[in-house]
Amino acid sequence: MLTGGIEAGGTKFVCAVGKGSGEIIDKVTFPTTTPDETLRRVRDYFSEFSIRAIGIGSFGPVDLDKKSTSYGTILHTPKQQWRQFDLLTAMKEYVQVPLFLDTDVNAAALGEYKYGVAQKDQSCLYITVGTGIGAGFVKDGVTYQGKSHPEMGHIMIQKHTDDYFAGICPSHGACLEGLASGPAIEKRYGKKAELLASHKEVWELEAFYLAQAIINYTLVLSPERVIIGGGVMKQHELYQRIRNYFSQLMNNYVELGNLEDFITAPTLSDEQGIKGAIALTYME
Amino acid sequence: MLTGGIEAGGTKFVCAVGKGSGEIIDKVTFPTTTPDETLRRVRDYFSEFSIRAIGIGSFGPVDLDKKSTSYGTILHTPKQQWRQFDLLTAMKEYVQVPLFLDTDVNAAALGEYKYGVAQKDQSCLYITVGTGIGAGFVKDGVTYQGKSHPEMGHIMIQKHTDDYFAGICPSHGACLEGLASGPAIEKRYGKKAELLASHKEVWELEAFYLAQAIINYTLVLSPERVIIGGGVMKQHELYQRIRNYFSQLMNNYVELGNLEDFITAPTLSDEQGIKGAIALTYME
Ligand SMILES: Nc1ncnc2c1ncn2[C@@H]1O[C@H](COP(=O)(O)OP(=O)(O)O)[C@@H](O)[C@H]1O
Ligand SMILES: Nc1ncnc2c1ncn2[C@@H]1O[C@H](COP(=O)(O)OP(=O)(O)O)[C@@H](O)[C@H]1O
Ligand SMILES: [Zn+2]
Ligand SMILES: [Zn+2]
Repeated sequence: MLTGGIEAGGTKFVCAVGKGSGEIIDKVTFPTTTPDETLRRVRDYFSEFSIRAIGIGSFGPVDLDKKSTSYGTILHTPKQQWRQFDLLTAMKEYVQVPLFLDTDVNAAALGEYKYGVAQKDQSCLYITVGTGIGAGFVKDGVTYQGKSHPEMGHIMIQKHTDDYFAGICPSHGACLEGLASGPAIEKRYGKKAELLASHKEVWELEAFYLAQAIINYTLVLSPERVIIGGGVMKQHELYQRIRNYFSQLMNNYVELGNLEDFITAPTLSDEQGIKGAIALTYME
Repeated sequence: MLTGGIEAGGTKFVCAVGKGSGEIIDKVTFPTTTPDETLRRVRDYFSEFSIRAIGIGSFGPVDLDKKSTSYGTILHTPKQQWRQFDLLTAMKEYVQVPLFLDTDVNAAALGEYKYGVAQKDQSCLYITVGTGIGAGFVKDGVTYQGKSHPEMGHIMIQKHTDDYFAGICPSHGACLEGLASGPAIEKRYGKKAELLASHKEVWELEAFYLAQAIINYTLVLSPERVIIGGGVMKQHELYQRIRNYFSQLMNNYVELGNLEDFITAPTLSDEQGIKGAIALTYME
């Protein structure tokens, strides 16, 4: 039987129908507008298929504490209309199949774990570097969750001594996201990140920060593989620069084998999130 | 039936015999000398009891990757005679009961989780700040382990702009352990940490670093509770200073309830490690 998946983003929703093998049968993308209008499009889309369940990889932060009264609610998003929106309860009114909710980054991690570059690994961390920075983690086939879900993008790292930029995180200023997200790059240099390709110093600094983040995640979680995606990573030279800083700063403290294997790009051509959302329904 | 526990430290070994309830029947402490002499004392001690298993919370780093050929081996410790010593294989020759090996900090976390301050929590992080800095994590009754065990003490954090100390970590210089361990304090101020009690600035800076570390661990693992122990935390005023910095730097980004409950001292009077070692044999 077919399974539904939703990659619920702040800008766009991707809905798809697929199989447990990772094969996508059909897929549609539409802009995220009001919750009501968006969920109607979700319902209309899935009504044409006979599906057993829907997995949702959601933007957030979203309350994933099952003991919480606001379980399934989108919390402090900049998107006014979605703030405090009880996504899970609303979805239950629009569709009548079992729902499996997780973060967008956990879904992406699960996608690469089941169908992508981490298929042979016991665990993998998936980091996205785009409008924000976030990370999801899968171990032994299960997405990681603590009391609520991690918020790895906001960790503190060592600022570069030559970097006088104050950071743009509204909560922390110079946390990782405040220093290294796409909008942080844009604010620091006064130009969109995609227009800075030829400026080596931009990507050196970016790699310095991302390498530190990966070091911290590695020292805390000890994952078998780290996958980095998101708009900013379209600057492919970043991968090698990150590996270089990682190697220099970590100084072989932990045995990780070949860094070309340890720190890699996703391999599912931007379908890791939606494939992972479908895979959420098969978890455990 | 009784169970054995070993808190295997670089300075001393604690061996004890106890029950699943957390009750300790008998306990002995002796200095860590050569591996052979030390393990003989371990064998002699346990030979007087009829025990079903022994749990070992070991100093390290120790290889805990069950797929590794050096599983159970102490890795790059400063203690020459113990470097590359295959603790688990050697122990098997000295005692004939099943052995359960984990890190000292994971054992301490498990001790507080089962018998101490975190008894009602689903997860807890235990940090020790002493000669080194390390942390262990328990979730749903199981100690956390990745590819190998975490090395959380060596994460990168933001250096204080007034701190010109280069850090003392042989691998990373100014990582957390390099900046905030007991020996780091001693090196920075030219005096043992225990003799600096009246110097407020010492504990302000220490709290600034430890708060950042707890922020990072919290954003990655999302634990229900964070327990901090170790020699340096004998400066009890540190707890409130850490909470203050944590609150200021985290800026309510994650909902954690009362910080007095979230960031606490251990409650097992230095027996968290040995009780946790015994508890390792009951895990899962
Ligand atoms: N080719 C590129 N090089 C560098 N940065 C890029 C590139 N393309 C997009 N970005 C940056 O990535 C961010 C958008 O990230 P993306 O992952 O596409 O979206 P989102 O995070 O909103 O899902 C923007 O800040 C943009 O400037
Ligand atoms: N009362 C104290 N105040 C501050 N620091 C202390 C105190 N007692 C011990 N220390 C420091 O703690 C470190 C030893 O930590 P401890 O946890 O006792 O041992 P270990 O980490 O070797 O197991 C030393 O660096 C010592 O200076
Ligand atoms: Zn932030
Ligand atoms: Zn270090």
